[in-house]
Amino acid sequence: MTTPATAAKPLLYLDDLKPGDRFTSGEHALDAAQILAFAAQFDPQPFHTDPEAAQATFFQGLAASGWHTAALTMKLLVEGGIPLADGIIGSGGEIHWPQPTRPGDVLHVEGEVVEVIPSRTKPNRGMVQMRCETLNQRGEVLQRFAPKLVVSRRPA
Amino acid sequence: MTTPATAAKPLLYLDDLKPGDRFTSGEHALDAAQILAFAAQFDPQPFHTDPEAAQATFFQGLAASGWHTAALTMKLLVEGGIPLADGIIGSGGEIHWPQPTRPGDVLHVEGEVVEVIPSRTKPNRGMVQMRCETLNQRGEVLQRFAPKLVVSRRPA
Repeated sequence: MTTPATAAKPLLYLDDLKPGDRFTSGEHALDAAQILAFAAQFDPQPFHTDPEAAQATFFQGLAASGWHTAALTMKLLVEGGIPLADGIIGSGGEIHWPQPTRPGDVLHVEGEVVEVIPSRTKPNRGMVQMRCETLNQRGEVLQRFAPKLVVSRRPA
Repeated sequence: MTTPATAAKPLLYLDDLKPGDRFTSGEHALDAAQILAFAAQFDPQPFHTDPEAAQATFFQGLAASGWHTAALTMKLLVEGGIPLADGIIGSGGEIHWPQPTRPGDVLHVEGEVVEVIPSRTKPNRGMVQMRCETLNQRGEVLQRFAPKLVVSRRPA
């Protein structure tokens, strides 16, 4: 279901990142069963839980919960999409879903470093402003997310 | 695990909403098992998957994935938190996690209508700018989310 980005990338610290650095994740193939299972637990609305009833809704067919797209994006980032030494820790950011994620979509994430901001008070870390797009196999953008990440500096 | 907001609220259309309207969801009690299960699937990092290893991380103990908090917030909204007639359909917004969600937290969501924007081109719907806070049993804010929702007008 999920293809990791690569076997082993070097682990990155704040000191290794600069604006313009780009990352590409592995892939995740989404099917209707996964969409229904997530929705039953977290977003039980007909357009996410019932392929038949979904036809007559705003989405005109089964669509994944936006939070499912977000959670799969995180999974792809964690599994090698952005190989940060101390993990991917976000304080939040602006998230948008320009179009619905559908059964059969194969997702991957493309990330770019926008800004690297060393902490003025904490010598061992800083913040990194990222821009992440989640795309399907046709290059359609399913999600845009602009997170600020907490990133460790390389230990002395 | 989840206590619905109320048995039956009237279903709301765009025409029923005005700035300042407030909503309160039911509650969801979160435990370590739920945190571990979500993280194993979507955010497999030690601070979300391993209570022991989590002690030595940024979070200094087991914390829920932010996306788990987000997904539970959606569940609480869908289960009566904001009773919209045609469902809760968001295009996105700004999301932040001011502090970690922990095992034992009992979550609820408080929502407020900020702006109601009838569509200029689609007579049957509009957008509603909301402000939603997810709080625990001590009133600590775990998540702030400012979604724009697509909301149907009352059928003629």
